[in-house]
Amino acid sequence: MLQPAFENNGGYMDNLLTGNHSEKIFLTSDSTVDATLSSIRHLEPELFRQTKIRLDKKTKPLGSLGMLEEFAGKVVAISGKQNPNLSKKVIFTFAGDHGVVEEGVSAFPKEVTPQMVFNILKGGAGINVLARHSGIEVRVVDVGVDYDFGNCPGLLHRKVARGTRNLSSGPAMTVEECIAALKVGIELASECRDEGIGLVGTGEMGIGNTTPSSAIIACIAGLAPEKVTHRGTGISDQALEIKLGAIRRGLAVNQPDPANPLDVLTCLGGCEIAAITGLILGCAANRIPVVVDGFISTAGALVATEMNRAVRDYIFAAHQSVEVGHRYMLERIGCRPVLDLDMRLGEGTGAALAMHIIEAGVKILLEMATFEQAGVSIGDNS
Amino acid sequence: MLQPAFENNGGYMDNLLTGNHSEKIFLTSDSTVDATLSSIRHLEPELFRQTKIRLDKKTKPLGSLGMLEEFAGKVVAISGKQNPNLSKKVIFTFAGDHGVVEEGVSAFPKEVTPQMVFNILKGGAGINVLARHSGIEVRVVDVGVDYDFGNCPGLLHRKVARGTRNLSSGPAMTVEECIAALKVGIELASECRDEGIGLVGTGEMGIGNTTPSSAIIACIAGLAPEKVTHRGTGISDQALEIKLGAIRRGLAVNQPDPANPLDVLTCLGGCEIAAITGLILGCAANRIPVVVDGFISTAGALVATEMNRAVRDYIFAAHQSVEVGHRYMLERIGCRPVLDLDMRLGEGTGAALAMHIIEAGVKILLEMATFEQAGVSIGDNS
Repeated sequence: MLQPAFENNGGYMDNLLTGNHSEKIFLTSDSTVDATLSSIRHLEPELFRQTKIRLDKKTKPLGSLGMLEEFAGKVVAISGKQNPNLSKKVIFTFAGDHGVVEEGVSAFPKEVTPQMVFNILKGGAGINVLARHSGIEVRVVDVGVDYDFGNCPGLLHRKVARGTRNLSSGPAMTVEECIAALKVGIELASECRDEGIGLVGTGEMGIGNTTPSSAIIACIAGLAPEKVTHRGTGISDQALEIKLGAIRRGLAVNQPDPANPLDVLTCLGGCEIAAITGLILGCAANRIPVVVDGFISTAGALVATEMNRAVRDYIFAAHQSVEVGHRYMLERIGCRPVLDLDMRLGEGTGAALAMHIIEAGVKILLEMATFEQAGVSIGDNS
Repeated sequence: MLQPAFENNGGYMDNLLTGNHSEKIFLTSDSTVDATLSSIRHLEPELFRQTKIRLDKKTKPLGSLGMLEEFAGKVVAISGKQNPNLSKKVIFTFAGDHGVVEEGVSAFPKEVTPQMVFNILKGGAGINVLARHSGIEVRVVDVGVDYDFGNCPGLLHRKVARGTRNLSSGPAMTVEECIAALKVGIELASECRDEGIGLVGTGEMGIGNTTPSSAIIACIAGLAPEKVTHRGTGISDQALEIKLGAIRRGLAVNQPDPANPLDVLTCLGGCEIAAITGLILGCAANRIPVVVDGFISTAGALVATEMNRAVRDYIFAAHQSVEVGHRYMLERIGCRPVLDLDMRLGEGTGAALAMHIIEAGVKILLEMATFEQAGVSIGDNS
């Protein structure tokens, strides 16, 4: 078990801020991270109630737009705005490398991480196509790629390490690196608030990063690695055994404390996963709804919700990934995915599709006529 | 059992057109409908195979975009074009009234049908909001509203009857009316081909139209009405009993032949349901992919697939409706829905959302970079 700075300073305290929820907030030893964590409140039911009243006046049977109506209520409650403006939407694709790749856990070589960063910057990757399709900007962040990008235009340079260390033989990151990656995400969320961005999506690119993601859910939920480990980009039976072995050794060597999300993230995580955790915390603190992509992004979201349960209120789960461990993450967070399309690409591709659907719910609230406006007779269930 | 014109002329014949599929095509006594039905072929696997090869060269793990990749393959195979152009997309919202409303089967009064037609024409309905959101044009078709719209601009005037008769006491339509409504849909599909429309969606507006839809699936699949009948726009327990009674009487009085889809449609259907059947047949005949909305639209699709099984190849099921009978329809057709968002509004709202996702799949095929183009190393699963 890793027991550095936060052993004395970190830990849980009661969160009595919202009255109804006496939940615990995990604190680190970093003032920025702790201020962010402490400022996240559960949503107020009153804003949902008000939105439901507005939606019930629209020309449709009560509740007949199902989850779209829930999305509208949640975005209003998160933003605190009766008429949320989602015209500016951004997906952050965080890139990072993983020391555990040296074990042979991925079907792709490590150099694919920077190659795909260039592909995304040129607009040719899956995330570019799907984000363009829905009017969403993609921002690529180097938070941990083992490659010197130099002064590469378009890339957000926020490198905290040139890849993680091999989690199967020791901690993937130092606590300082992990905190630094969390703060990259937190700072980007603050910038989104300043820019008036209405909806944020998470994404990632990192060869090998289903391995740390499986390790994180196995550790936090106390599940056997074979229950939550899958083929990632499409590895063979033999490589799957290697991957499982790496995760088992990682858990045995590091002995991360499941009740200590920062310890789990530091020992088993990745720079991009930690940055996603930070982005989600920052969005929640800044009242920006955040759409969490698939397996790896949800690993980041899981750590965030373990630090403060109220974070869950600010999250939309974009889709159900094919990766077998994903549903355990979503169950633990308590999120129903928007889509289920057998996808497992990452980058933020599921988020891009889901953001369009969530925005549709908000447009229903903002643009649809009421019975009165349209001169339509009200049914006897209204 | 209704046994008019098609008793002698109609019936099934072997479909040996595609070689592999010796399926039967149901024929009516109408030359336009029969020519349409006879021209619909099963898709060729070769086009799917070619598309898969192209998709496997894109910068992503093999198959990792799941259903999006299937959508791309299906649109290519349907259209017969390697690079399908989906820039023009249309949803047809067919409006019709239902005599069975006099039984008290709906929570809304009958005058809501024309009121909602006006609402859609003004752009204030749910379908307008969602279609605008995804760049889809909405066309409203009066195929059977019990209201004189006069020279109402924007409305497509294709009225075949001022509403159906009460299905609980006799056939809802005459065979002539039913054929006329089928031909409305078939002709609109031909116009779409001429206009170069790449993707069509179905929708409907008709107070009371979950009742005929439940009756149709109950009859065709031989299911007890209580298994496939739900609350529609939100009726009470008492009204649900009335609705069930009307369906039971409709099946008993008309004795429609489950093996004769035209008989089922004539006795139990609606003008808008028949027009949807026709639109789907016409799209299949003209090789235009067609996205079927929820419960009522799927009733129309079910009749179309009972007439010619090959129609199924041209259909996308937009979403899983909350209406309990919907899954029985989708099971029988053999379609997996794109979305599952607890929706039950109709109008084409589910189709509007699903069309955006299907188009996303096509854009992946057309816009994403290959490994070679992007200079990305290929994994050992490629």
